Amino acid sequence: MNKTIEKLLSHHSVRKFTEKKLTTEQIHTLVKSAQAASTSSYIQAYTILGIKDIEKKKRLSELAGNQPYVINNGHFFVFCADLYRHEIIGENEDGDVIDSLESTEKFMVAVIDAALAAQNTVVAAESMGLGICYIGGIRNNLEAVSDLLELPDRVIPLFGLAVGYPEEETGVKPRLPLHHIYQEDRYNSDPGRIMSDLEEYNKTVSSYYEARTNGKRNDRWTSQMAAMLSNKKRMYMKDYVEKKKFNKK
Amino acid sequence: MNKTIEKLLSHHSVRKFTEKKLTTEQIHTLVKSAQAASTSSYIQAYTILGIKDIEKKKRLSELAGNQPYVINNGHFFVFCADLYRHEIIGENEDGDVIDSLESTEKFMVAVIDAALAAQNTVVAAESMGLGICYIGGIRNNLEAVSDLLELPDRVIPLFGLAVGYPEEETGVKPRLPLHHIYQEDRYNSDPGRIMSDLEEYNKTVSSYYEARTNGKRNDRWTSQMAAMLSNKKRMYMKDYVEKKKFNKK
Repeated sequence: MNKTIEKLLSHHSVRKFTEKKLTTEQIHTLVKSAQAASTSSYIQAYTILGIKDIEKKKRLSELAGNQPYVINNGHFFVFCADLYRHEIIGENEDGDVIDSLESTEKFMVAVIDAALAAQNTVVAAESMGLGICYIGGIRNNLEAVSDLLELPDRVIPLFGLAVGYPEEETGVKPRLPLHHIYQEDRYNSDPGRIMSDLEEYNKTVSSYYEARTNGKRNDRWTSQMAAMLSNKKRMYMKDYVEKKKFNKK
Repeated sequence: MNKTIEKLLSHHSVRKFTEKKLTTEQIHTLVKSAQAASTSSYIQAYTILGIKDIEKKKRLSELAGNQPYVINNGHFFVFCADLYRHEIIGENEDGDVIDSLESTEKFMVAVIDAALAAQNTVVAAESMGLGICYIGGIRNNLEAVSDLLELPDRVIPLFGLAVGYPEEETGVKPRLPLHHIYQEDRYNSDPGRIMSDLEEYNKTVSSYYEARTNGKRNDRWTSQMAAMLSNKKRMYMKDYVEKKKFNKK
């Protein structure tokens, strides 16, 4: 196993960073790494915003659920799906692009493009000894985030990414069994097989929490998931993305 | 610049592989690397299928537009957004999960989760000296791909990934200018700025094609994009994902 893979396998989110800021050179290396990721038909359907303004960071932290690590980090990125430049290209090149831009297909393309770029940023950051935490919490209120960052239509923020020098490390969280997440040639949808795999995984997850909390927690993964999904969060999303002219057709 | 970042920056798709197959150990290392990526609220909303059956590979190649590298590679993965296991969890844990599972928010979560995992697979593969090519072409006909792979509702294939030992290398394709894709604190939506950045980029892209084709091609990026987006592709996607019980609410 090589060093890159060792690093991938030791990934864990970092939620407490030192005050040390990333240099412009480091930020540019991270963005170049992001850009080197594959992109569907060369479309490059994303924009990366870096947030330095402290007032904007404070507001983003409030909007995302008051996580202090949205403010206190080495740098904060917001990854956006972006088809705005492609609309302008359509106008300038006499292209009939609007139906494509507003399709669910291109919504998926833009989300995938942005996510591939983000994960390259993460790999690059961790290879430099930095830690990261994805911030899905900005999706609590995307209208306000969009206003704060002055985003036009056809640009939507997908998630934040806090990057910085780790002050506190966390443990590597156990993942679903490999034979459960990975299957060959066909999908085995038998519910009995699935629950049996998940009961095995529940034991792993419970042991992980017990060890990490000195016995105070022993959550099962399936009950965590049932509770999380029973909480109907961000149900405004369908209307929001359509209003921003994604996912309409 | 460290070796991991050097490797990220030298990424290029590989479309011709030797006949050598990946070992089970290599495949498992790639899947474990995928799983190590961040996942929204620990949801792990994806499944990875590995396709070994030669008849299925041939059929997938047809469906994706007859690319030979869908058949001829070291291994072929299909990355799927997957909330099917979460439906079963809801039933077993008495959770009221259906509204969440069918929300646009959770559609985005599943797509992002799968993409982060896929990009970790790519980074791991390239660190092992392997090459990769994402295959968005499977989205030409997802109904047929779903049938072939026996996917239940709440599982949709997003893209394929061909992995293997490179037989032919391609060049690194130039990306949008860094100052265009990355901005600080606010989004500058001025169309004049955007077109001026893109004209600069058009020159870079034209030079790249000229050098690669001995002067036979000199495409501008903006005209490529206008032509690609004027071709209304995969407009069935909205109905398809809703039929598979994603992105409905």
